[in-house]
Amino acid sequence: MRERFHERLDSFAGTLGTLCELSGTAMRLATAALLNTDLVLAEQVIDDVGRIDRLALECEENAFTLLALQAPVASELRQIVGGIHIVADLGRMGGLARHVAQVARRRHPDPVLPEEVRAEFAEMGRIAVAMAATAGDVLAGHDPERAAGLGVDDEAVDEMHGRLLVHIAGPDWDHGVQSAIDVTLLARYYERYADHAVQVGRRVVYLVTGLNPPADTRR
Amino acid sequence: MRERFHERLDSFAGTLGTLCELSGTAMRLATAALLNTDLVLAEQVIDDVGRIDRLALECEENAFTLLALQAPVASELRQIVGGIHIVADLGRMGGLARHVAQVARRRHPDPVLPEEVRAEFAEMGRIAVAMAATAGDVLAGHDPERAAGLGVDDEAVDEMHGRLLVHIAGPDWDHGVQSAIDVTLLARYYERYADHAVQVGRRVVYLVTGLNPPADTRR
Repeated sequence: MRERFHERLDSFAGTLGTLCELSGTAMRLATAALLNTDLVLAEQVIDDVGRIDRLALECEENAFTLLALQAPVASELRQIVGGIHIVADLGRMGGLARHVAQVARRRHPDPVLPEEVRAEFAEMGRIAVAMAATAGDVLAGHDPERAAGLGVDDEAVDEMHGRLLVHIAGPDWDHGVQSAIDVTLLARYYERYADHAVQVGRRVVYLVTGLNPPADTRR
Repeated sequence: MRERFHERLDSFAGTLGTLCELSGTAMRLATAALLNTDLVLAEQVIDDVGRIDRLALECEENAFTLLALQAPVASELRQIVGGIHIVADLGRMGGLARHVAQVARRRHPDPVLPEEVRAEFAEMGRIAVAMAATAGDVLAGHDPERAAGLGVDDEAVDEMHGRLLVHIAGPDWDHGVQSAIDVTLLARYYERYADHAVQVGRRVVYLVTGLNPPADTRR
Protein backbone atom coordinates (compact mmCIF):
# COMPACT_ATOMS: atom_id res chain seq x y z
CA MET A 1 0.00 0.00 0.00
CA ARG A 2 2.90 2.28 0.85
CA GLU A 3 4.39 1.54 -2.57
CA ARG A 4 1.12 2.31 -4.30
CA PHE A 5 1.07 5.59 -2.39
CA HIS A 6 4.51 6.55 -3.65
CA GLU A 7 3.59 5.70 -7.20
CA ARG A 8 0.60 8.01 -6.91
CA LEU A 9 2.68 10.74 -5.32
CA ASP A 10 5.20 10.53 -8.16
CA SER A 11 2.42 10.65 -10.69
CA PHE A 12 0.99 13.72 -8.93
CA ALA A 13 4.36 15.45 -9.12
CA GLY A 14 4.64 14.44 -12.78
CA THR A 15 1.28 15.98 -13.58
CA LEU A 16 2.40 19.27 -12.03
CA GLY A 17 5.30 19.24 -14.48
CA THR A 18 2.95 18.56 -17.38
CA LEU A 19 0.63 21.37 -16.29
CA CYS A 20 3.58 23.73 -16.15
CA GLU A 21 4.65 22.77 -19.65
CA LEU A 22 1.12 23.16 -21.00
CA SER A 23 0.73 26.60 -19.39
CA GLY A 24 4.01 27.68 -20.96
CA THR A 25 3.00 26.39 -24.39
CA ALA A 26 -0.39 28.08 -24.09
CA MET A 27 1.25 31.45 -23.44
CA ARG A 28 3.76 30.94 -26.24
CA LEU A 29 1.01 30.21 -28.75
CA ALA A 30 -1.30 32.92 -27.38
CA THR A 31 1.47 35.48 -27.83
CA ALA A 32 2.06 34.25 -31.39
CA ALA A 33 -1.68 34.49 -32.11
CA LEU A 34 -1.66 38.03 -30.75
CA LEU A 35 1.40 39.17 -32.71
CA ASN A 36 0.38 37.46 -35.97
CA THR A 37 -3.37 38.15 -35.80
CA ASP A 38 -3.86 34.41 -36.13
CA LEU A 39 -7.46 33.39 -35.46
CA VAL A 40 -6.93 29.65 -35.88
CA LEU A 41 -4.10 29.66 -33.39
CA ALA A 42 -6.10 31.79 -30.94
CA GLU A 43 -8.92 29.26 -31.04
CA GLN A 44 -6.50 26.40 -30.59
CA VAL A 45 -5.13 28.04 -27.44
CA ILE A 46 -8.66 28.50 -26.08
CA ASP A 47 -9.32 24.77 -26.64
CA ASP A 48 -5.96 23.76 -25.19
CA VAL A 49 -6.61 25.70 -22.00
CA GLY A 50 -9.87 23.78 -21.60
CA ARG A 51 -7.68 20.70 -21.35
CA ILE A 52 -5.43 22.42 -18.81
CA ASP A 53 -8.51 23.16 -16.69
CA ARG A 54 -9.57 19.52 -16.77
CA LEU A 55 -6.09 18.27 -15.94
CA ALA A 56 -5.83 20.76 -13.06
CA LEU A 57 -9.12 19.52 -11.65
CA GLU A 58 -7.95 15.91 -11.97
CA CYS A 59 -4.70 16.81 -10.26
CA GLU A 60 -6.61 18.44 -7.41
CA GLU A 61 -8.68 15.29 -6.99
CA ASN A 62 -5.53 13.19 -6.97
CA ALA A 63 -4.14 15.32 -4.15
CA PHE A 64 -7.29 14.63 -2.19
CA THR A 65 -7.03 10.89 -2.82
CA LEU A 66 -3.39 10.95 -1.70
CA LEU A 67 -4.37 12.61 1.56
CA ALA A 68 -7.25 10.19 2.09
CA LEU A 69 -5.38 7.07 1.07
CA GLN A 70 -3.05 6.99 4.01
CA ALA A 71 -1.83 9.54 6.49
CA PRO A 72 1.25 10.94 4.76
CA VAL A 73 4.32 11.76 6.82
CA ALA A 74 5.15 15.44 7.29
CA SER A 75 7.39 15.91 4.25
CA GLU A 76 4.92 14.12 1.97
CA LEU A 77 2.07 16.10 3.45
CA ARG A 78 3.94 19.31 2.74
CA GLN A 79 4.51 18.17 -0.83
CA ILE A 80 0.84 17.40 -1.40
CA VAL A 81 -0.46 20.60 0.19
CA GLY A 82 2.17 22.63 -1.65
CA GLY A 83 1.10 20.83 -4.81
CA ILE A 84 -2.51 21.90 -4.29
CA HIS A 85 -1.40 25.53 -4.31
CA ILE A 86 0.87 25.02 -7.30
CA VAL A 87 -1.97 23.47 -9.32
CA ALA A 88 -4.02 26.59 -8.65
CA ASP A 89 -1.21 28.86 -9.87
CA LEU A 90 -0.55 26.78 -13.00
CA GLY A 91 -4.26 26.61 -13.80
CA ARG A 92 -4.48 30.37 -13.49
CA MET A 93 -1.47 30.80 -15.80
CA GLY A 94 -3.35 28.77 -18.39
CA GLY A 95 -6.40 30.97 -17.83
CA LEU A 96 -4.36 34.11 -18.45
CA ALA A 97 -2.97 32.67 -21.70
CA ARG A 98 -6.59 32.05 -22.70
CA HIS A 99 -7.40 35.72 -21.99
CA VAL A 100 -4.62 36.79 -24.35
CA ALA A 101 -5.99 34.48 -27.05
CA GLN A 102 -9.51 35.76 -26.46
CA VAL A 103 -8.46 39.36 -27.05
CA ALA A 104 -6.75 38.30 -30.30
CA ARG A 105 -9.92 36.50 -31.37
CA ARG A 106 -12.21 39.37 -30.42
CA ARG A 107 -10.39 41.89 -32.64
CA HIS A 108 -9.74 39.57 -35.58
CA PRO A 109 -9.16 40.33 -38.49
CA ASP A 110 -7.79 43.58 -37.04
CA PRO A 111 -4.48 43.36 -35.23
CA VAL A 112 -4.80 44.15 -31.53
CA LEU A 113 -1.43 45.79 -31.06
CA PRO A 114 -0.23 49.04 -32.59
CA GLU A 115 3.15 48.58 -34.24
CA GLU A 116 4.94 50.62 -31.58
CA VAL A 117 4.14 48.20 -28.71
CA ARG A 118 4.60 44.92 -30.59
CA ALA A 119 8.20 44.52 -29.48
CA GLU A 120 7.24 44.97 -25.80
CA PHE A 121 4.61 42.27 -26.01
CA ALA A 122 6.93 39.93 -27.88
CA GLU A 123 9.44 40.43 -25.08
CA MET A 124 6.89 40.08 -22.24
CA GLY A 125 5.68 36.89 -23.91
CA ARG A 126 9.21 35.58 -24.27
CA ILE A 127 9.98 36.21 -20.59
CA ALA A 128 6.64 34.77 -19.43
CA VAL A 129 7.22 31.55 -21.38
CA ALA A 130 10.79 31.34 -20.08
CA MET A 131 9.45 31.77 -16.54
CA ALA A 132 7.07 28.84 -17.02
CA ALA A 133 10.04 26.76 -18.22
CA THR A 134 12.10 27.82 -15.20
CA ALA A 135 9.20 27.04 -12.87
CA GLY A 136 9.04 23.59 -14.50
CA ASP A 137 12.77 23.06 -13.94
CA VAL A 138 12.47 24.20 -10.34
CA LEU A 139 9.54 21.82 -9.85
CA ALA A 140 11.42 18.91 -11.40
CA GLY A 141 14.74 19.51 -9.70
CA HIS A 142 13.62 21.26 -6.56
CA ASP A 143 16.38 23.73 -7.18
CA PRO A 144 15.85 26.82 -5.02
CA GLU A 145 18.66 28.71 -6.76
CA ARG A 146 16.78 28.81 -10.02
CA ALA A 147 13.64 29.99 -8.23
CA ALA A 148 15.47 33.21 -7.37
CA GLY A 149 15.83 33.88 -11.10
CA LEU A 150 12.05 33.98 -11.36
CA GLY A 151 12.05 37.07 -9.16
CA VAL A 152 14.46 38.83 -11.54
CA ASP A 153 12.31 37.98 -14.56
CA ASP A 154 9.20 39.11 -12.71
CA GLU A 155 10.77 42.50 -12.06
CA ALA A 156 11.55 42.83 -15.76
CA VAL A 157 7.90 42.10 -16.63
CA ASP A 158 6.70 44.56 -13.97
CA GLU A 159 8.92 47.28 -15.38
CA MET A 160 7.72 46.67 -18.94
CA HIS A 161 4.15 46.68 -17.69
CA GLY A 162 4.68 50.01 -15.92
CA ARG A 163 6.41 51.59 -18.93
CA LEU A 164 3.61 50.45 -21.21
CA LEU A 165 0.94 52.09 -19.05
CA VAL A 166 2.93 55.32 -18.96
CA HIS A 167 3.36 55.21 -22.73
CA ILE A 168 -0.34 54.60 -23.41
CA ALA A 169 -1.35 57.46 -21.13
CA GLY A 170 1.24 59.82 -22.66
CA PRO A 171 0.90 62.42 -25.39
CA ASP A 172 2.37 60.17 -28.11
CA TRP A 173 -0.45 57.65 -27.96
CA ASP A 174 -2.66 58.19 -30.99
CA HIS A 175 -4.45 54.85 -31.26
CA GLY A 176 -7.54 55.80 -29.34
CA VAL A 177 -9.14 54.49 -26.21
CA GLN A 178 -10.27 51.03 -27.41
CA SER A 179 -6.70 50.14 -28.22
CA ALA A 180 -5.56 51.56 -24.88
CA ILE A 181 -8.06 49.33 -23.06
CA ASP A 182 -6.84 46.24 -24.94
CA VAL A 183 -3.20 47.01 -24.26
CA THR A 184 -3.91 47.76 -20.57
CA LEU A 185 -5.66 44.44 -20.05
CA LEU A 186 -3.13 42.46 -22.07
CA ALA A 187 -0.23 43.94 -20.12
CA ARG A 188 -2.03 43.04 -16.92
CA TYR A 189 -2.44 39.41 -18.08
CA TYR A 190 1.28 39.03 -18.69
CA GLU A 191 2.10 40.68 -15.40
CA ARG A 192 -0.22 38.33 -13.49
CA TYR A 193 1.11 35.32 -15.37
CA ALA A 194 4.62 36.23 -14.20
CA ASP A 195 3.36 36.67 -10.61
CA HIS A 196 1.93 33.16 -10.60
CA ALA A 197 5.16 31.68 -11.98
CA VAL A 198 7.01 33.36 -9.09
CA GLN A 199 4.52 31.84 -6.67
CA VAL A 200 5.21 28.37 -8.05
CA GLY A 201 8.92 28.92 -7.41
CA ARG A 202 8.26 30.22 -3.88
CA ARG A 203 6.18 27.17 -3.06
CA VAL A 204 8.94 24.84 -4.18
CA VAL A 205 11.52 26.74 -2.12
CA TYR A 206 9.22 26.42 0.86
CA LEU A 207 8.86 22.69 0.24
CA VAL A 208 12.60 22.20 0.07
CA THR A 209 13.81 24.53 2.79
CA GLY A 210 10.73 24.94 4.98
CA LEU A 211 11.88 28.54 5.26
CA ASN A 212 10.36 31.76 4.00
CA PRO A 213 6.68 31.03 3.97
CA PRO A 214 5.44 32.02 0.54
CA ALA A 215 4.74 35.74 0.65
CA ASP A 216 1.87 36.22 -1.72
CA THR A 217 2.40 38.79 -4.43
CA ARG A 218 -1.15 40.06 -4.35
CA ARG A 219 -0.59 42.89 -6.73
CA MET B 1 -6.64 14.37 21.16
CA ARG B 2 -9.72 13.94 19.00
CA GLU B 3 -11.40 16.73 20.98
CA ARG B 4 -8.41 19.00 20.54
CA PHE B 5 -8.60 18.27 16.81
CA HIS B 6 -12.22 19.35 16.64
CA GLU B 7 -11.52 22.52 18.55
CA ARG B 8 -8.84 23.36 16.02
CA LEU B 9 -11.09 22.49 13.11
CA ASP B 10 -13.81 24.78 14.49
CA SER B 11 -11.29 27.53 14.98
CA PHE B 12 -10.09 27.05 11.37
CA ALA B 13 -13.68 27.38 10.11
CA GLY B 14 -14.14 30.45 12.31
CA THR B 15 -11.07 32.11 10.83
CA LEU B 16 -12.46 31.57 7.32
CA GLY B 17 -15.55 33.50 8.44
CA THR B 18 -13.39 36.28 9.82
CA LEU B 19 -11.34 36.47 6.62
CA CYS B 20 -14.55 36.73 4.62
CA GLU B 21 -15.78 39.57 6.80
CA LEU B 22 -12.46 41.40 6.56
CA SER B 23 -12.37 41.05 2.77
CA GLY B 24 -15.89 42.46 2.58
CA THR B 25 -15.01 45.39 4.84
CA ALA B 26 -11.85 46.08 2.85
CA MET B 27 -13.84 46.34 -0.39
CA ARG B 28 -16.51 48.51 1.26
CA LEU B 29 -13.90 50.97 2.54
CA ALA B 30 -11.84 50.84 -0.66
CA THR B 31 -14.94 51.75 -2.67
CA ALA B 32 -15.68 54.61 -0.27
CA ALA B 33 -12.07 55.83 -0.58
CA LEU B 34 -12.41 55.70 -4.36
CA LEU B 35 -15.75 57.52 -4.49
CA ASN B 36 -14.82 60.15 -1.90
CA THR B 37 -11.19 60.66 -2.93
CA ASP B 38 -10.26 59.84 0.65
CA LEU B 39 -6.52 59.32 1.05
CA VAL B 40 -6.60 58.45 4.75
CA LEU B 41 -9.19 55.76 4.15
CA ALA B 42 -7.27 54.41 1.15
CA GLU B 43 -4.17 54.03 3.32
CA GLN B 44 -6.17 52.37 6.08
CA VAL B 45 -7.45 49.78 3.58
CA ILE B 46 -3.91 49.09 2.39
CA ASP B 47 -2.84 48.48 6.02
CA ASP B 48 -5.90 46.38 6.77
CA VAL B 49 -5.22 44.11 3.82
CA GLY B 50 -1.73 43.51 5.20
CA ARG B 51 -3.50 42.03 8.21
CA ILE B 52 -5.71 39.91 5.93
CA ASP B 53 -2.56 38.54 4.27
CA ARG B 54 -1.08 37.59 7.62
CA LEU B 55 -4.29 35.97 8.82
CA ALA B 56 -4.61 34.03 5.55
CA LEU B 57 -1.08 32.72 5.95
CA GLU B 58 -1.81 31.72 9.55
CA CYS B 59 -4.98 29.99 8.39
CA GLU B 60 -3.05 28.09 5.76
CA GLU B 61 -0.57 26.94 8.40
CA ASN B 62 -3.42 25.83 10.64
CA ALA B 63 -4.80 23.72 7.82
CA PHE B 64 -1.44 22.04 7.52
CA THR B 65 -1.30 21.38 11.27
CA LEU B 66 -4.80 19.91 11.16
CA LEU B 67 -3.75 17.51 8.42
CA ALA B 68 -0.57 16.58 10.25
CA LEU B 69 -2.11 16.30 13.71
CA GLN B 70 -4.17 13.24 13.00
CA ALA B 71 -5.45 11.57 9.90
CA PRO B 72 -8.82 13.28 9.43
CA VAL B 73 -11.78 11.23 8.24
CA ALA B 74 -13.01 11.88 4.71
CA SER B 75 -15.55 14.61 5.48
CA GLU B 76 -13.08 16.47 7.69
CA LEU B 77 -10.39 16.08 5.09
CA ARG B 78 -12.70 17.55 2.50
CA GLN B 79 -13.43 20.45 4.81
CA ILE B 80 -9.76 21.20 5.38
CA VAL B 81 -8.72 20.89 1.73
CA GLY B 82 -11.76 22.96 0.68
CA GLY B 83 -10.74 25.47 3.34
CA ILE B 84 -7.26 25.78 1.84
CA HIS B 85 -8.82 26.83 -1.47
CA ILE B 86 -11.27 29.18 0.23
CA VAL B 87 -8.45 30.93 2.10
CA ALA B 88 -6.74 31.57 -1.24
CA ASP B 89 -9.91 33.10 -2.71
CA LEU B 90 -10.57 35.27 0.34
CA GLY B 91 -6.97 36.43 0.44
CA ARG B 92 -7.19 37.38 -3.20
CA MET B 93 -10.42 39.31 -2.57
CA GLY B 94 -8.53 41.32 0.03
CA GLY B 95 -5.73 41.87 -2.48
CA LEU B 96 -8.19 43.22 -5.05
CA ALA B 97 -9.67 45.64 -2.48
CA ARG B 98 -6.10 46.82 -1.89
CA HIS B 99 -5.70 47.44 -5.64
CA VAL B 100 -8.78 49.66 -5.62
CA ALA B 101 -7.39 51.61 -2.66
CA GLN B 102 -4.00 51.92 -4.37
CA VAL B 103 -5.55 53.50 -7.45
CA ALA B 104 -7.39 56.00 -5.21
CA ARG B 105 -4.12 56.82 -3.44
CA ARG B 106 -2.13 57.14 -6.67
CA ARG B 107 -4.44 59.80 -8.12
CA HIS B 108 -5.05 61.73 -4.89
CA PRO B 109 -5.95 64.64 -4.59
CA ASP B 110 -7.60 64.14 -7.98
CA PRO B 111 -10.68 61.98 -8.09
CA VAL B 112 -10.15 58.80 -10.12
CA LEU B 113 -13.65 58.48 -11.50
CA PRO B 114 -15.37 60.81 -13.93
CA GLU B 115 -18.80 61.79 -12.63
CA GLU B 116 -20.60 59.73 -15.28
CA VAL B 117 -19.24 56.36 -14.05
CA ARG B 118 -19.45 57.00 -10.29
CA ALA B 119 -22.87 55.38 -9.99
CA GLU B 120 -21.65 52.20 -11.73
CA PHE B 121 -18.72 51.84 -9.36
CA ALA B 122 -20.88 52.56 -6.33
CA GLU B 123 -23.19 49.78 -7.52
CA MET B 124 -20.39 47.33 -8.36
CA GLY B 125 -18.92 48.00 -4.93
CA ARG B 126 -22.29 47.47 -3.26
CA ILE B 127 -22.82 44.14 -5.01
CA ALA B 128 -19.23 43.00 -4.36
CA VAL B 129 -19.57 43.72 -0.63
CA ALA B 130 -22.97 41.99 -0.56
CA MET B 131 -21.38 38.97 -2.26
CA ALA B 132 -18.71 38.77 0.44
CA ALA B 133 -21.48 38.85 3.06
CA THR B 134 -23.40 36.11 1.23
CA ALA B 135 -20.23 34.02 0.93
CA GLY B 136 -19.78 34.45 4.70
CA ASP B 137 -23.36 33.30 5.33
CA VAL B 138 -22.88 30.32 3.03
CA LEU B 139 -19.65 29.47 4.84
CA ALA B 140 -21.27 29.75 8.25
CA GLY B 141 -24.46 27.94 7.42
CA HIS B 142 -23.29 25.70 4.63
CA ASP B 143 -26.40 26.73 2.77
CA PRO B 144 -26.08 25.77 -0.91
CA GLU B 145 -29.25 27.66 -1.84
CA ARG B 146 -27.70 30.99 -1.00
CA ALA B 147 -24.59 30.09 -3.00
CA ALA B 148 -26.72 30.10 -6.15
CA GLY B 149 -27.49 33.77 -5.49
CA LEU B 150 -23.79 34.51 -5.83
CA GLY B 151 -23.98 33.45 -9.48
CA VAL B 152 -26.78 35.95 -10.10
CA ASP B 153 -24.81 38.77 -8.48
CA ASP B 154 -21.74 37.78 -10.45
CA GLU B 155 -23.64 38.08 -13.71
CA ALA B 156 -24.78 41.57 -12.70
CA VAL B 157 -21.17 42.60 -12.05
CA ASP B 158 -20.05 41.04 -15.36
CA GLU B 159 -22.70 42.99 -17.23
CA MET B 160 -21.74 46.26 -15.58
CA HIS B 161 -18.10 45.53 -16.33
CA GLY B 162 -18.90 44.88 -19.99
CA ARG B 163 -21.06 47.99 -20.31
CA LEU B 164 -18.35 50.12 -18.73
CA LEU B 165 -15.73 48.96 -21.23
CA VAL B 166 -18.09 49.68 -24.13
CA HIS B 167 -18.84 53.12 -22.71
CA ILE B 168 -15.17 54.02 -22.23
CA ALA B 169 -14.33 52.94 -25.79
CA GLY B 170 -17.31 54.81 -27.24
CA PRO B 171 -17.56 58.27 -28.80
CA ASP B 172 -18.96 59.91 -25.63
CA TRP B 173 -15.84 59.29 -23.58
CA ASP B 174 -13.98 62.58 -23.25
CA HIS B 175 -11.83 61.98 -20.21
CA GLY B 176 -8.74 60.86 -22.02
CA VAL B 177 -6.70 57.71 -21.98
CA GLN B 178 -5.26 57.85 -18.44
CA SER B 179 -8.74 57.89 -17.00
CA ALA B 180 -9.76 55.07 -19.36
CA ILE B 181 -6.85 52.95 -18.10
CA ASP B 182 -7.83 53.55 -14.47
CA VAL B 183 -11.46 52.71 -15.10
CA THR B 184 -10.53 49.60 -17.11
CA LEU B 185 -8.34 48.22 -14.33
CA LEU B 186 -10.77 49.16 -11.56
CA ALA B 187 -13.65 47.47 -13.34
CA ARG B 188 -11.48 44.41 -13.74
CA TYR B 189 -10.71 44.36 -9.98
CA TYR B 190 -14.41 44.34 -9.08
CA GLU B 191 -15.13 41.69 -11.67
CA ARG B 192 -12.39 39.42 -10.31
CA TYR B 193 -13.49 40.05 -6.73
CA ALA B 194 -16.97 38.82 -7.67
CA ASP B 195 -15.47 35.74 -9.40
CA HIS B 196 -13.62 34.78 -6.23
CA ALA B 197 -16.75 35.20 -4.10
CA VAL B 198 -18.53 32.81 -6.48
CA GLN B 199 -15.66 30.34 -6.09
CA VAL B 200 -16.04 30.42 -2.30
CA GLY B 201 -19.72 29.55 -2.70
CA ARG B 202 -18.92 26.75 -5.16
CA ARG B 203 -16.41 25.25 -2.77
CA VAL B 204 -18.94 25.20 0.05
CA VAL B 205 -21.55 23.56 -2.20
CA TYR B 206 -18.97 20.95 -3.09
CA LEU B 207 -18.20 20.38 0.59
CA VAL B 208 -21.86 19.92 1.42
CA THR B 209 -23.10 17.97 -1.57
CA GLY B 210 -19.92 16.41 -2.95
CA LEU B 211 -21.48 17.16 -6.33
CA ASN B 212 -20.50 19.54 -9.07
CA PRO B 213 -16.76 19.81 -8.69
CA PRO B 214 -16.00 23.50 -8.59
CA ALA B 215 -15.73 24.69 -12.17
CA ASP B 216 -13.17 27.43 -12.08
CA THR B 217 -14.26 30.75 -13.52
CA ARG B 218 -10.92 31.54 -15.05
CA ARG B 219 -12.00 34.65 -16.81
